[in-house]
Amino acid sequence: MLIVMRPEATSTEVDGVLEIIKKLGFRGHVMPGATRTAIGITGNKGSIDPAYFENLPGVADTIRVTKPYKLISNDLKPEKSSIKIGNSVIGDGSLSIIAGPCAVESPEQVFAAAEAVSGAGAKFFRGGAFKPRTSPYAFQGMGEEGLKILAEVRERYGLNIVTEAMDEHGIDLVEKYGDCIQIGARNMQNFALLKYAGKTRKPILLKRGLSATLDELLLAAEYIMAEGNYNVILCERGIRTFADHARNTMDLSIVPAVRRLSHLPIIIDPSHGTGHNYMVEPLALAGVAVGADGLIVEVHPQPENAKCDGAQAITPTQFKQLYTKVMALHQTLTPASQPAQVSPH
Amino acid sequence: MLIVMRPEATSTEVDGVLEIIKKLGFRGHVMPGATRTAIGITGNKGSIDPAYFENLPGVADTIRVTKPYKLISNDLKPEKSSIKIGNSVIGDGSLSIIAGPCAVESPEQVFAAAEAVSGAGAKFFRGGAFKPRTSPYAFQGMGEEGLKILAEVRERYGLNIVTEAMDEHGIDLVEKYGDCIQIGARNMQNFALLKYAGKTRKPILLKRGLSATLDELLLAAEYIMAEGNYNVILCERGIRTFADHARNTMDLSIVPAVRRLSHLPIIIDPSHGTGHNYMVEPLALAGVAVGADGLIVEVHPQPENAKCDGAQAITPTQFKQLYTKVMALHQTLTPASQPAQVSPH
Amino acid sequence: MLIVMRPEATSTEVDGVLEIIKKLGFRGHVMPGATRTAIGITGNKGSIDPAYFENLPGVADTIRVTKPYKLISNDLKPEKSSIKIGNSVIGDGSLSIIAGPCAVESPEQVFAAAEAVSGAGAKFFRGGAFKPRTSPYAFQGMGEEGLKILAEVRERYGLNIVTEAMDEHGIDLVEKYGDCIQIGARNMQNFALLKYAGKTRKPILLKRGLSATLDELLLAAEYIMAEGNYNVILCERGIRTFADHARNTMDLSIVPAVRRLSHLPIIIDPSHGTGHNYMVEPLALAGVAVGADGLIVEVHPQPENAKCDGAQAITPTQFKQLYTKVMALHQTLTPASQPAQVSPH
Amino acid sequence: MLIVMRPEATSTEVDGVLEIIKKLGFRGHVMPGATRTAIGITGNKGSIDPAYFENLPGVADTIRVTKPYKLISNDLKPEKSSIKIGNSVIGDGSLSIIAGPCAVESPEQVFAAAEAVSGAGAKFFRGGAFKPRTSPYAFQGMGEEGLKILAEVRERYGLNIVTEAMDEHGIDLVEKYGDCIQIGARNMQNFALLKYAGKTRKPILLKRGLSATLDELLLAAEYIMAEGNYNVILCERGIRTFADHARNTMDLSIVPAVRRLSHLPIIIDPSHGTGHNYMVEPLALAGVAVGADGLIVEVHPQPENAKCDGAQAITPTQFKQLYTKVMALHQTLTPASQPAQVSPH
Repeated sequence: MLIVMRPEATSTEVDGVLEIIKKLGFRGHVMPGATRTAIGITGNKGSIDPAYFENLPGVADTIRVTKPYKLISNDLKPEKSSIKIGNSVIGDGSLSIIAGPCAVESPEQVFAAAEAVSGAGAKFFRGGAFKPRTSPYAFQGMGEEGLKILAEVRERYGLNIVTEAMDEHGIDLVEKYGDCIQIGARNMQNFALLKYAGKTRKPILLKRGLSATLDELLLAAEYIMAEGNYNVILCERGIRTFADHARNTMDLSIVPAVRRLSHLPIIIDPSHGTGHNYMVEPLALAGVAVGADGLIVEVHPQPENAKCDGAQAITPTQFKQLYTKVMALHQTLTPASQPAQVSPH
Repeated sequence: MLIVMRPEATSTEVDGVLEIIKKLGFRGHVMPGATRTAIGITGNKGSIDPAYFENLPGVADTIRVTKPYKLISNDLKPEKSSIKIGNSVIGDGSLSIIAGPCAVESPEQVFAAAEAVSGAGAKFFRGGAFKPRTSPYAFQGMGEEGLKILAEVRERYGLNIVTEAMDEHGIDLVEKYGDCIQIGARNMQNFALLKYAGKTRKPILLKRGLSATLDELLLAAEYIMAEGNYNVILCERGIRTFADHARNTMDLSIVPAVRRLSHLPIIIDPSHGTGHNYMVEPLALAGVAVGADGLIVEVHPQPENAKCDGAQAITPTQFKQLYTKVMALHQTLTPASQPAQVSPH
Repeated sequence: MLIVMRPEATSTEVDGVLEIIKKLGFRGHVMPGATRTAIGITGNKGSIDPAYFENLPGVADTIRVTKPYKLISNDLKPEKSSIKIGNSVIGDGSLSIIAGPCAVESPEQVFAAAEAVSGAGAKFFRGGAFKPRTSPYAFQGMGEEGLKILAEVRERYGLNIVTEAMDEHGIDLVEKYGDCIQIGARNMQNFALLKYAGKTRKPILLKRGLSATLDELLLAAEYIMAEGNYNVILCERGIRTFADHARNTMDLSIVPAVRRLSHLPIIIDPSHGTGHNYMVEPLALAGVAVGADGLIVEVHPQPENAKCDGAQAITPTQFKQLYTKVMALHQTLTPASQPAQVSPH
Repeated sequence: MLIVMRPEATSTEVDGVLEIIKKLGFRGHVMPGATRTAIGITGNKGSIDPAYFENLPGVADTIRVTKPYKLISNDLKPEKSSIKIGNSVIGDGSLSIIAGPCAVESPEQVFAAAEAVSGAGAKFFRGGAFKPRTSPYAFQGMGEEGLKILAEVRERYGLNIVTEAMDEHGIDLVEKYGDCIQIGARNMQNFALLKYAGKTRKPILLKRGLSATLDELLLAAEYIMAEGNYNVILCERGIRTFADHARNTMDLSIVPAVRRLSHLPIIIDPSHGTGHNYMVEPLALAGVAVGADGLIVEVHPQPENAKCDGAQAITPTQFKQLYTKVMALHQTLTPASQPAQVSPH
């Protein structure tokens, strides 16, 4: 932490700050400047609450320096993590595509979607049995019945199942039927749920909250990892801004920012990130180009009849085209020596 | 819903849209304009998914008209709701002050705060036994032990206890020990928690999420009410914006906006709303002036030693002054005929 | 500036940073921490470009400490500035009300508005002769003809004229006909205009840009003052956020934040800040309660016929009521010893 | 425009609204719904001010339908515009790269940058002679002297010059020395400047404002075009949000959104869009993948000595690599039949 004194601060006030630093067991470093004095603090293990200093006489500002995360950090683990989901992997340099409908609505709808997803060459299937809906009067999902349909998809198509849980009971059920537990954007700081997810053995797909900073996203992952589950995949799905041409604003620079700080893989959701069918392909391509480890995309056999978020779902035909394009793009961008380039798709 | 056609849309395309409206059981109203045709839809009870139309040929845009809320609406219940909490009320025209520390840390700290809160004249006490912290390594609260201390505060000082719950078990405990269950900003769209809270009989203080729109806040309340618990108090606690001089940006215009749509009471949290000790009083005064039903304020006997959010806590002395000022202000603003004006404080 | 090194940074990398600091003529202070080293820089007069350091080997982050403003600062001038506009003053502890129509449309409309504004007791009149409109096809203002009508208002009603200029020619004209030159939100960082405004002798009302931080607002004022015009009044008029219940989000905590840093007066614009007639009075009251030096409010004799922004204009009757209320509120909040309390209104 | 009545609105109130619509010369269409009546308005040529209706008795809400732009619209001109700049073109399906330093600092610095830009294969050179700086004490650019250096670059390297103007005098000078006039983000709604730019014959590069919506960006272009200059290129350069890991948040979905509405070309600025050297290449690739017509990138021979924005500038070596990658990417994404694919680079 750095404490910046007011220009008119007296030496008694500087001493007062130093005394409190000492009392807390840390070390203060006085740096007299041209117009004002700053005091650096060292000796602390974690971050220090600015409250100790902010209202002391003579203090103008406090600035945090130490970042509070540990397990997510590539200071701790420099090599990138690759996370096993069912019989496949995310984060090993290949491009992982998760696709399927927003919500599980019926066996027919799900199997038609799975046919398309598997046929194009993708390895992961998505579909919600528990749906977080803004209105209590909107369709809330099929629950365990839906999870059974998803388990059937794994049997029939060999796809690995990624599906959302919204509470502890849901996590238990997804752990039973699925391969990867999704924590949705609205629950990114539901700390009770994060801790519970940290106790399961299934990998977690953690979606960024609508107004979460990079630090908050990484600390939400840290919550899960601190409980012993190190298999966390981050997901950028658009943030809330003033811009109104899309449902959310996709913040793609978070991909290189995560790479600089963390070993965790990160994927992109261009469906929720844009909210419009016609934007999904261009933003999927952008997500691959920026260096994401994969995509999660909504595909529905009949988007116009979808029970939720139909406006952003793409058709099986559109998905086949998108899949071909993103794979070609990924190959162009991947240096020849990496095995990911000779992907069979 | 209103569907706006592209200028070059053919009459066949217009007919295609009308057919789908008819198939859904609704009625379409064609409005030919100077440059483009619009089609209004009536006959629907709830809101219609734009997905049915957005990707049809000739369609330029879809615009929602019907609002999806019912129970929160003053269309349903024109008179304002007043909510009983313990032996007092929020929403009856008086100004309700909830105060106390961010977190319950020890009996001594809590009783010192309660002494100050009660001494100034406030009726409600706050203090967290379960703390939602961004970092898993930060103090997480005292749990049930903390709730017992709060229950003791009610006994000793006659204060009504408002305290946060973060999961179902926490709601059960707060229902046992407290008088009002707080749902925090990060859980505003934790729909599983909202439903569970809707099944309790204790009133709910629902804090606005950091990036929640007015509609989303009202629909979160609707989730609780749809389960049978009509005792919901809304709370504005600052939203997340680009502005960096305060921890959050207080959005006070939500108070008149809520009044226009809903019968629910709404209070203001200037402590989380600003994050700085020196801003709490001015924003508290602003909250009263804009017409809020009350305030929730962090008071700590020794802010510099607080285990969480000390920078925004005010001292007992500052609270006493704040309480006097907001009460005087409220009296100035309240027309003489209302009983609130002759409040004993 | 503070430079934070990566945990794995070598001592050679630390020395590399120190060398560059030395080469720039500053002094480096090494602070070895538990996990990483930080380096403080002193000896600089202004702020240092982080570019010198950000991409050096071993550097994790750079943090600015020194604030780049001078003339606006209460470090320089501790006592608050009061700015003379025509025959009255803003910033002397009294509450200054500027009111009038969005645009000057005709002598009749302007005189009717001035009658209402003056009749209620206000001292300042607003009205735009040059209108910044989002669309080139919207009414752009009456130009010099409009300014002549405003000058007539001063003659007839003794009101001091505050009106916007959008370019250099406009500044020349407003200097000729008006008493205070308004720089609008969209021009807050039109640096050429700010410099030109700094060369006039008329006071400047500087509106905060839609996405301006506190620092940017203060530095825009600094641009004007650096040219020799110290008579700057700041104005909070709402910022752009995701919230959609109002046209903008009023950020009232900027008032105490400005007070902490600057001697400049600051007023509030609840008309543009909210965009809705029914919100103007509550937010005006909030602005006074938070401690603003005044208000600027849109009043139109017939809002439903206004050529611009009619939805947010209030009627003469509404203005009279607002004026009475804000004056009563200001009196309640002002300590008895201050002369402002015995204002004749 | 659509007017939504309150559920309890009387038929007299509905008639009152219809009367005003009639008085304005438009036609009202009553649509009685299950819970509330809506009234559509047709017959209007431009958009209608909601002020006419918003405060009428019985009215709950007003919703704009008609978009106010004309010349930018692909309703008017369905084929995409390609804009000639000097001896090259932007918007013809090829990928146009504009590169060079933030500011013109000296002939040596500029020629070294031009050498790198030209050597890599780019056709357009950027560099500011007039710099919009947040602080009045920061380097403000070399002015006309700088423009002469840029003109020299055109002579020596055959590069087309894109450079910013901040006022009318600057536009005159850039028109004399440069090939394309840049209007910066802070001036996007400096309507006086837009009008003046509309009277020149040089193409305009219009950067999106930090908090500009899509509509506002398109209407700013409309301002220029309404004066007779149809050669406008749009530029996304990042918007202001709460996210703090980058200087701005790049909003790439605006590219498909612009395509859907307008014939104007749009390019991407990953340097200002991110503010960090290490993010420039990934976001440049993303910009190409999303379908932009080109990029504008800051290249400096010695970023650590740059007089402005050095942290985001890339080196000549980095630029060469970026150029090769984005060209390969563009070729992968461009269908074989288009001439752009056989670009010589």
